[in-house]
Amino acid sequence: MDLNPADDRFADLIRADLGDDVLRPATERYLEEPRNRFAGHIGLLALPRTVEEVAGLVRHASAAHVPVVPYGGGTGLVGGQVMAHGPAPLVVSMERMTAIRAVYPTENVLIAEAGAILADVRAAADSADRLFPLSLAAQGSCRIGGNLATNAGGVNVLRYGNARDLCLGLEAVLPNGEIWHGLSRLRKDNTGYDLRNLLIGAEGTLGIITAAALKLFPRPAAVGTAMFQVPSPEAAIELLALARDQVGETVSTFELIHRQGLEFLTEVLPDVRQPFEVPPEWSVLIELGLSAGQSPSEALEAVYQSAESQGLVSDGVIAQSEAQRSDLWAVRERIPEANRLIGSVSSHDISIPISLIPDFIRQGADMVSALGPYRINCFGHLGDGNLHYNVFPPLGRYRADFEDQRGPVKRAVHDLVHAFNGSVSAEHGVGRLKVDDLQRYGDPAKLHAMRAIKAALDPKGIMNPGAVLKV
Amino acid sequence: MDLNPADDRFADLIRADLGDDVLRPATERYLEEPRNRFAGHIGLLALPRTVEEVAGLVRHASAAHVPVVPYGGGTGLVGGQVMAHGPAPLVVSMERMTAIRAVYPTENVLIAEAGAILADVRAAADSADRLFPLSLAAQGSCRIGGNLATNAGGVNVLRYGNARDLCLGLEAVLPNGEIWHGLSRLRKDNTGYDLRNLLIGAEGTLGIITAAALKLFPRPAAVGTAMFQVPSPEAAIELLALARDQVGETVSTFELIHRQGLEFLTEVLPDVRQPFEVPPEWSVLIELGLSAGQSPSEALEAVYQSAESQGLVSDGVIAQSEAQRSDLWAVRERIPEANRLIGSVSSHDISIPISLIPDFIRQGADMVSALGPYRINCFGHLGDGNLHYNVFPPLGRYRADFEDQRGPVKRAVHDLVHAFNGSVSAEHGVGRLKVDDLQRYGDPAKLHAMRAIKAALDPKGIMNPGAVLKV
Repeated sequence: MDLNPADDRFADLIRADLGDDVLRPATERYLEEPRNRFAGHIGLLALPRTVEEVAGLVRHASAAHVPVVPYGGGTGLVGGQVMAHGPAPLVVSMERMTAIRAVYPTENVLIAEAGAILADVRAAADSADRLFPLSLAAQGSCRIGGNLATNAGGVNVLRYGNARDLCLGLEAVLPNGEIWHGLSRLRKDNTGYDLRNLLIGAEGTLGIITAAALKLFPRPAAVGTAMFQVPSPEAAIELLALARDQVGETVSTFELIHRQGLEFLTEVLPDVRQPFEVPPEWSVLIELGLSAGQSPSEALEAVYQSAESQGLVSDGVIAQSEAQRSDLWAVRERIPEANRLIGSVSSHDISIPISLIPDFIRQGADMVSALGPYRINCFGHLGDGNLHYNVFPPLGRYRADFEDQRGPVKRAVHDLVHAFNGSVSAEHGVGRLKVDDLQRYGDPAKLHAMRAIKAALDPKGIMNPGAVLKV
Repeated sequence: MDLNPADDRFADLIRADLGDDVLRPATERYLEEPRNRFAGHIGLLALPRTVEEVAGLVRHASAAHVPVVPYGGGTGLVGGQVMAHGPAPLVVSMERMTAIRAVYPTENVLIAEAGAILADVRAAADSADRLFPLSLAAQGSCRIGGNLATNAGGVNVLRYGNARDLCLGLEAVLPNGEIWHGLSRLRKDNTGYDLRNLLIGAEGTLGIITAAALKLFPRPAAVGTAMFQVPSPEAAIELLALARDQVGETVSTFELIHRQGLEFLTEVLPDVRQPFEVPPEWSVLIELGLSAGQSPSEALEAVYQSAESQGLVSDGVIAQSEAQRSDLWAVRERIPEANRLIGSVSSHDISIPISLIPDFIRQGADMVSALGPYRINCFGHLGDGNLHYNVFPPLGRYRADFEDQRGPVKRAVHDLVHAFNGSVSAEHGVGRLKVDDLQRYGDPAKLHAMRAIKAALDPKGIMNPGAVLKV
């Protein structure tokens, strides 16, 4: 169906209905995304303050066949927040809907509006002596609505799940402008189809999330962090199983780090304090969150001892202070920044069945080295089977020299991932970057069902056109 | 759209395509359900052995506009498995697709066909030194496909989640006969709309689940079970919070028990060994699953001590042997049987925001006693906010005398649940029993979306017609 641009006449209709204050002049930042792979365009920028205003905007867009791009923190890495082609869209930014509407500590529930910054949601939980576990590098600027729309992951998925798993209910505006009042605080509610999970991960193509009921957790009484050297990815996987046998679900983080990442830090971020004199080929960052009365350093020490007796670790550092903890975390958290400074040929957010990861890493290395003299930084959320598998130019050369190689490298990596029954979109979403991948690797029956659902809920195709599904 | 019965001509078409062996004469048991509230009828019974046979059956049904009723263990309590009205359906029972296709202990994943009995799935996990935590009274006869189609709950939801939370991927036949090959073993996979969660809980109205990739967990090294007397439901809720502060996620069961349930046991199941001389008004069954090196009885003792100092418990029994554990569990698990023997006027599977439960229980008691001289047995999964709220005739009288009161009692209880922002369908599903409730209490925007999705995926309306959504 043909769409129309969000032009002056459309703006007048909105002003007449919703007042002058809901629209704003568009600025550059709504047209950019962190990796600068997409340049958006924009017809109109709206900053609604209530779900009713969001519904009003969507009703107008539906009536006028104007495309709508929901906008959170703008931190997405797959271009889901910028529309480059077709009629200039109405961008609906949630930045004025930032309230924490309620906290129910007894129920371990918090209700936040979609525009709330993730860090603020975490802080609000903290103030109620609770934990909201979603944690990722962009948490100072990403917004919870975007986290849900993309089913964000992060460093605590191992213990607490993805954004999807942390949501009990939603308030949302559907593509026809109807408001779904679904802010359930219930842990069990089987009343019909799971619209919540359908909107989560749909990246704004089936509606706009305006608020969410989120799950909180008890705050661990004590947190322990360590970095262990492991002889191989196999050993890392066995170490995780061993740790879980010993300390159960308290393992909240288990991140694999490759020497390449540590060398990148040395190269471009030399102020980052590294735990080992000589960067080990493989190491893991492990964190435990324990109940009262348990000692994290003793628990980590015990894990290390058992692992050492099985040859699963060769050296290790257990943080003895908050400062040491934060040093260890800095190693993991600043690797993406180092990656950006080095400049990748191609970056991949992939997941692989956990037991196949060692094979994948070996075959991937062979495959990439056959393509050229690249450096690979393979790191990430090993416990979830989610790797960030990034391919870089050789030392002394730059990504600009390899622009024409991005496509072939990406294709080769994604083909390998697919051959391993993996996913080419683990935690960042499909956005506009991976629309073709979804067509290529997706299950045909599922794609047919997705298209049918999209057509049923958004028959005019106004919601974030071009994201997830090819227009 | 008009549907046709699964008649002899239709049977011939199936035999010609799929052979003689896939069809069976229908027997009574496919027409019954445990509470005898629905009498089904049946045109044809099919017992497919492969997903391809299921797809063949659905393609024929789609072409001939014949209704299809997917059939698992037949243990559902809301009539989702029996179709009473309209043209006689094709019943597709999964009882010959019972294979455990694979177990991946390293990945904590098990792949089971839909017809696998829940207890067999649990046993297969056990054999791999893992836990599949879904556990409910019918586990000896219910099948995993039905558990997923209804998003079953049970006694371990508090720690491990509903059936939905325990599933990573599905293989399913969609209403057009296409096979969705979605048996992902991945923990993170954001490749398009969440078809998995859409089929889970759809009660066979959007397709037939034929196999599932299920999450496994480490087996707790030691399990501790106790029953504590609590002065009130408020105290029970505070006790749960206290226990979680002390022992974190290891609290796997937290069941509220009312004196009425214990008195029913005394009345009709006197062989059940009860832990307290005088049945307390309120008590809780609590279970911890701990890692190696922790003592369950010490942990429970510590919880009891702290709780006692805050006035949250007044007496308690901590199981000191496997026999004592099983005695405590028997008290909880045989209450439903006692309920059946007594015979309820009306039973309700409800959930309430946890902090509102004490108020709900008080107002519910007032409301029910205003309706008549009923006895209430209110018990269940307090940690999930899920109560089984069952209303019984006074001592010495029988449900048969109150048949005409079932409707008004149910309506009054459900109205109250709705006023408390609760759900009238917590863990048993909607089936055919609660179709009207869904229309009455459901969010209109969500209902519209559900109807649009149903029409999009099943335009001929062949899949389990009359369940979940009114035809």
